[in-house]
Amino acid sequence: MTLPPSAYQKLESVFARRTALMGALGILHWDSRTMMPDAAAPSRAEQVAALELVLHEQLSDPRVADWLAEAEARTADLNDWQRANLREMRRVRDLAAALPADLVEAQARAHSRAEATWCTAKPKADFAALRPALEEVLALKREEASVKAGILGCGLYDALHDGYEPGNRVADFAPVFDAYADWLPGFLEKVEARQAAEPAPLPMDGAFPIAGQRDLAIGLAARIGYTGRVDETMHAFCGGATGDVRITSRFDEANWFKSLKSSLHETGHALYEQGRPQAWMQQPVGFARGLAVHESQSLTFDMQVGRHPRFLEWLLPQMKAAFGVDGPGWTVENMQRRFRQVQRTLIRVDADEVTYPAHVILRWRLEQAMVEGRLEIADLPAAWNEGLRGLLGITPPDDGVGCLQDLHWPMGLWGYFPTYTLGAMMAAQLFQGALNDIPGLEDQLGRGEFGPLVGWLRDKVHRWGRFLTTRELLIQATGKPLDAGVFQAHLERRYLG
Amino acid sequence: MTLPPSAYQKLESVFARRTALMGALGILHWDSRTMMPDAAAPSRAEQVAALELVLHEQLSDPRVADWLAEAEARTADLNDWQRANLREMRRVRDLAAALPADLVEAQARAHSRAEATWCTAKPKADFAALRPALEEVLALKREEASVKAGILGCGLYDALHDGYEPGNRVADFAPVFDAYADWLPGFLEKVEARQAAEPAPLPMDGAFPIAGQRDLAIGLAARIGYTGRVDETMHAFCGGATGDVRITSRFDEANWFKSLKSSLHETGHALYEQGRPQAWMQQPVGFARGLAVHESQSLTFDMQVGRHPRFLEWLLPQMKAAFGVDGPGWTVENMQRRFRQVQRTLIRVDADEVTYPAHVILRWRLEQAMVEGRLEIADLPAAWNEGLRGLLGITPPDDGVGCLQDLHWPMGLWGYFPTYTLGAMMAAQLFQGALNDIPGLEDQLGRGEFGPLVGWLRDKVHRWGRFLTTRELLIQATGKPLDAGVFQAHLERRYLG
Repeated sequence: MTLPPSAYQKLESVFARRTALMGALGILHWDSRTMMPDAAAPSRAEQVAALELVLHEQLSDPRVADWLAEAEARTADLNDWQRANLREMRRVRDLAAALPADLVEAQARAHSRAEATWCTAKPKADFAALRPALEEVLALKREEASVKAGILGCGLYDALHDGYEPGNRVADFAPVFDAYADWLPGFLEKVEARQAAEPAPLPMDGAFPIAGQRDLAIGLAARIGYTGRVDETMHAFCGGATGDVRITSRFDEANWFKSLKSSLHETGHALYEQGRPQAWMQQPVGFARGLAVHESQSLTFDMQVGRHPRFLEWLLPQMKAAFGVDGPGWTVENMQRRFRQVQRTLIRVDADEVTYPAHVILRWRLEQAMVEGRLEIADLPAAWNEGLRGLLGITPPDDGVGCLQDLHWPMGLWGYFPTYTLGAMMAAQLFQGALNDIPGLEDQLGRGEFGPLVGWLRDKVHRWGRFLTTRELLIQATGKPLDAGVFQAHLERRYLG
Repeated sequence: MTLPPSAYQKLESVFARRTALMGALGILHWDSRTMMPDAAAPSRAEQVAALELVLHEQLSDPRVADWLAEAEARTADLNDWQRANLREMRRVRDLAAALPADLVEAQARAHSRAEATWCTAKPKADFAALRPALEEVLALKREEASVKAGILGCGLYDALHDGYEPGNRVADFAPVFDAYADWLPGFLEKVEARQAAEPAPLPMDGAFPIAGQRDLAIGLAARIGYTGRVDETMHAFCGGATGDVRITSRFDEANWFKSLKSSLHETGHALYEQGRPQAWMQQPVGFARGLAVHESQSLTFDMQVGRHPRFLEWLLPQMKAAFGVDGPGWTVENMQRRFRQVQRTLIRVDADEVTYPAHVILRWRLEQAMVEGRLEIADLPAAWNEGLRGLLGITPPDDGVGCLQDLHWPMGLWGYFPTYTLGAMMAAQLFQGALNDIPGLEDQLGRGEFGPLVGWLRDKVHRWGRFLTTRELLIQATGKPLDAGVFQAHLERRYLG
């Protein structure tokens, strides 16, 4: 006799189907950016809207709420992973059900209005033009934060950050970010002094035909352990679906470094997606922990491995052979020197490894203050300029290269910025953990052997999905929670060592 | 004051959403055949199954049945197109709701079992090995036919054919097919006699680099009027979504003819999809009439235009220039002679324009007899061999090149075969109609001008969607229902003229 499925089992079916539909959306999104003719955009928008409506309706089904309650009343029947999965299902469903449809709709309108205004205001450095639209975005964000904070039992800013790194809280990173901000000015001075004393890096010019860059990108991603498509887009990304992860890279004939960097970066993301717990691939507990942990995986390859002298030792001869380039600039030492150039810049996306966190810390402090009602949009430009002066000692000549530079806030991405620096710090901490645990890791990188490192990441990060919190994951992998000291030690080695 | 939406308007929303979800499925299908890594097949199968379940559930919603009844009670409020749309909605919903889920599931299993068995049985010409699986397929098909016949109020075979050419009936084509079968033996003898008296066609050899073939294919499709992607696949197809039609072609370095033929063919399909009534694109009444009319559009370009001497006059210099080929074989007259070669072959897919209908007529007669219970699977090989002898005077040495040659029956495609020949006959009739209506059409083809012909097809076929039946469409376009005489006259001109 077959038993009828339990409430928990019925939920697993619902969420497996949800994952399949999200996979369909993922492929459509990939197609939009790689293959779709522009003229098909309206048709694609209808497909995406129809699928999103299906996903929303699926969770609004009252039976889902009943099954959740029933399963939660019988957790003794479940094992640890099933219980963790049930917790994630509850989270997904409650957040989806909580937001009133008219708030979601108002946000969609406000974001597209603010985004459009930003496109004309930014080139003119006209903050006043964006202000009303941004005020509307913030007002709606605060409503959203208030609803979510009630469900999650956390602060307003926490509630927004939770949308990008579920379960992670300001308390988990504020001390770490503040410590970095305190440490940075002194460190930066030392780095600049050393840089001034060093000769400038030699050029590494040449012709880098796209076909060759593409072959290198594909070969490198495959060698590291990624299986799947590698396509070309203006902005590289990792997307696709569960079971069909796809990365893109960007290729610039005059600059081989962009494609190398973006290939390593997206390969790191893809390895995480492909290494999620195989038995839980279709279930919420099997999803990637969040964007911060995701970024730690991409930055492990992009910034830790990709700038490691032993890796460069292995890579350099291949680049020289592939592009027929050579000369005094084509040495590991010179590549390292290039990678080590530091500059106090106004623009986040142009910032180097050392100053990038200052840009993130500035934005985090400002957006938290705005969400908590301690800072008005009207006062943002002044607060921005003052904050940047405090962190990096520079001041924007106008708001176009100041508080208007990013699209995140107009688009409604609030609470997102910290994931960049959390990712960078975790990458340093994880890579240090791997160095501690894997004998001969640096020699392996010198031979282009990535198996042991990828195996370690699979074991310590990928296979845990959402079973552990971000904090638990780091402790389990490296013996301690997020520690700015590890990142700082890494920077000291790389920039002063 | 805004009135609440009527039942009919609510149905339009449901079906527009359905079209968007079908579009998502169309893009996933295109991706499966052009872009998807093989390893992603299981993930894709889950996405497709999840979407198909959504589509099924959408129509099973009891509100849809209520709205249909309500709208049908108030058709006085609707205009002609809305009424026709309501008729199509009713048809789609009733057919979807009628088939018991366990029958659909049993069919899916039976088809995949029969397909797998066929793959090993066919190379060994072992009909006995396929027989049990095929008997199961037929038994389930007869169940399906019986359910559908009850809803449509038609014969068992009609009910299956209706799945491919909705509304079309055996009575619409049986006399035409029978007339062709009677006329063929005498005609074939005359063609063979002429062919024996003519010199063999000269070779048109050369090197045809894929890149050049691709450029020609893309340029030709665009010149005829298609807008969208052209990709490469082993088997060419036209797919994608409403608003995002995509075609593929196949390229063989040794054989430029394959890509020319498949590009013309798929361009014809794509023009139909892109020319459907713009105001009804998302609604059932705006869909393509059926596979037979679809095939008539592809064959208009592939067989009517593509082998017309005036078109070849325009095309030939371009081919010579593109591939740097020349010589005595590269003349319009020789190309026509090549296209005119006729041979009594055992294999449908290798058959020429003249004998192809005989293969279709054989299959139609046999499948109708099987569905109606007048022929057992056990007796199929003998009936096949006897039928082919009657039609073409040849007999297969074994079942591998006889009744085992096609995958249609194991896959559950019963009632499909007639659409091939219906398409060929309609293409001849429509092209003759265009010749009658458009002054100077042949001169236009000689200059590579396709606008007037495409405009005529848009006006007479494409823009009607499913508003008219297949029969009404042909009468409206050409003044009469399907007439084997027009196709026969075309063959007489081309093969004996």
